[in-house]
This record gives sequence, C-alpha cells and structure tokens, in this order.
Amino acid sequence: MDPLRRCVIQLSRLPGIGERTATRLAFWLLRAPDDLVCELADAMMELKKGIVECEICCNMVSGSPCTLCSDSNRRNGMVCVVEQPQDIVNIEKGGVFKGRYHVLHGAISPLDGVGPADLRVEQLLKRLEPESLEEVILATDPDVEGDTTALYLARLLRPLGVRVTRLAHGIPVGTEIEYADQASLARAIEHRREI
Amino acid sequence: MDPLRRCVIQLSRLPGIGERTATRLAFWLLRAPDDLVCELADAMMELKKGIVECEICCNMVSGSPCTLCSDSNRRNGMVCVVEQPQDIVNIEKGGVFKGRYHVLHGAISPLDGVGPADLRVEQLLKRLEPESLEEVILATDPDVEGDTTALYLARLLRPLGVRVTRLAHGIPVGTEIEYADQASLARAIEHRREI
Repeated sequence: MDPLRRCVIQLSRLPGIGERTATRLAFWLLRAPDDLVCELADAMMELKKGIVECEICCNMVSGSPCTLCSDSNRRNGMVCVVEQPQDIVNIEKGGVFKGRYHVLHGAISPLDGVGPADLRVEQLLKRLEPESLEEVILATDPDVEGDTTALYLARLLRPLGVRVTRLAHGIPVGTEIEYADQASLARAIEHRREI
Repeated sequence: MDPLRRCVIQLSRLPGIGERTATRLAFWLLRAPDDLVCELADAMMELKKGIVECEICCNMVSGSPCTLCSDSNRRNGMVCVVEQPQDIVNIEKGGVFKGRYHVLHGAISPLDGVGPADLRVEQLLKRLEPESLEEVILATDPDVEGDTTALYLARLLRPLGVRVTRLAHGIPVGTEIEYADQASLARAIEHRREI
C-alpha cells in the first residue's frame, strides 16, 4: 500500500480524527524533520512499554507503586475513587485533595456491557483493607453511570464502617442561575445545604 | 521523563492538537491494543522513508517518476501547476483534468520569506522544455500569495509561447448570491463571461 495512504488510514483510527484531518496530519508529518517524526513514533512505542497499572491504585504510571501512593507526605486514610486516570490529573491541578486515589477504569454501564467485574473494584476492596480508613470519596462522574457506580460502591463499602462521601453536584462556580442547565439546577435544589 | 508526559508533549507538536487533545489521545493510545499503536508508529516511520519527490512533477510519491507522470493514458502537453500535493488529491477526485501536474510546494509570500527560489520553479521550467506544450494551467490558490505566484509564473512562461491559463474564480457552485462573500462577488463581477 502507498505509505501516504497507509499513514492516513492509521491516523484516522485516532479518536476525533477524520480522514480530512488525518490527511492534513500525514502531509504535515511528511514535511516535518525526520527526527521529529522519529521522536513521536518512539514516544508512542515507549508509552505502551513504559506505562503500567499501579499495583495499589490502578493508575497508569511509569513505576509501581506510583508516586501518589508512595508519597509519605500525602494523607493516608482518605481515598478518592475516580473513573479514569485523567480525572486524577485534573483533581491534582487544584491541589485541594491531599489523600490517595483509586482508579476504576470506567463506570458501571449495563447498556455498554460494563459491570463491576470489568472495573478495578476488587483491587479497591483489597487496598482499603489494610488502610486505617477515615473516608472514601466517590468521585465518579456526575452522570447516570457515575451515579450508579457510586451507589454500588457505597453499598459495597458499608460493612467497612467507613465514612463514604460523594463530590457535591450543583451549579458550577462562575455561572449564572439564569443560564444554568436543568439537570444541574434540579440537583442543586435537591442537594441544597444549610447556611 | 514520564512516558505519558513525553507522549503528550510529542503529540502536542502536531498541528491543531493542543495539550488537552494530546492528553486525550495519549490515554486512548495507552488503552488501545499494542498492535494498533505499533502499526501507527510504523506507518509514520515508513512515511518518512518511503515517500520521495517525483523527479518530474515534484509530487510526494512512493516511487519516482510517479504514476501520474508515467501514466500513458494521461494527456501530455497540459500541465496543471498547484501549490501542494493535497491539491492534486482534490483535483483528481473530480476526474475532470486528464493532463499532468506540477507541485510548487508553496506560494510566493514575501511576508513569510518565501520567494521563487524556495519553490519548485526551476524544476517546472526544466520539465516544460522537452514537452510538446499546449497549455499550462496555473492552479495556485485564489488568494494573495496564489495570485502573486500565478502572475510571476505567467511572466516567466511567456517566452515559451505556450497558452497560460488560470482556474476561474467567482461564486462557488451551489451557493446563493444573497450569501456570497464580498471578495468572491467582486472577482465574479470582474471576471464575468459572455453568455
């Protein structure tokens, strides 16, 4: 097959990349310096070889156990459960949460055939046992699948007698009530707090 | 450097790919099957090694001279000059033009420091000599740089005594006069034809 055609086809497999963008990228790669393209190809191969799941928190990391699990400055006893590694990236940006994490690698979704067995639930229970637990924060996405997963985990964790919390849902900071979406408004009214 | 971070940085170098998209792509590659990522990396490397400039038309091809130059069914004597290889892809889609091509690899743009010496002009003159020329179509883009390049080439080709034409500019087929942009309208009035 023509190397250009092959490259366009391969690039089109990437999410959000259609044939037009793939063609533009292929021609750009063609004109780019050889070492730039080599570096990109090499970085992609190294990614597959060099990243593993942390044996404790299941995050995708370069060494197991990961730095977030090994860091003695972080607060033991508080575990924040998320759906994807990218969620940790975003939460860490804020610098508010100082505890440990656990990555489920998805959420319960019957429509997509994803059940608890497909997620890192067993690993979650396993890592919670030895910990002197104060609180488990269920930070799955505020959507149907995320809520379902949180409910499931809350029930599962009840025997542990630990405090189980969920991130607050409602009106995002900086928006106006006039333009708030209906789902968030409904949730905000339902979960209103005492002042 | 963390392989994930390295991959995000490398992907961010691609045109139109910011850090957020690069992160999304990197995580997608992480979860993708190994052979998919290997194929993509390999396709990119093969692209750099397997694609060369056609010695006649300067198109980016897998073998020189390219199929468009070698094809005896195509019409000699008519050469369509374009700015980029992608332009040939699009013109060929229509199946209207049956002659030969020449790729300049850019257009004259003093603001960007691109002059005739940076384009495949010499190669154009060289390949035009032995051909029994009927017509040279200047199909550079209908913008300032493309027009400048066309004007320059028209003057350069005058001594050859060959017919030099430019693609028609005007109102695109399928649009409405009411919504036509001003530049195209002005050009359409200027270049109006006898019915």
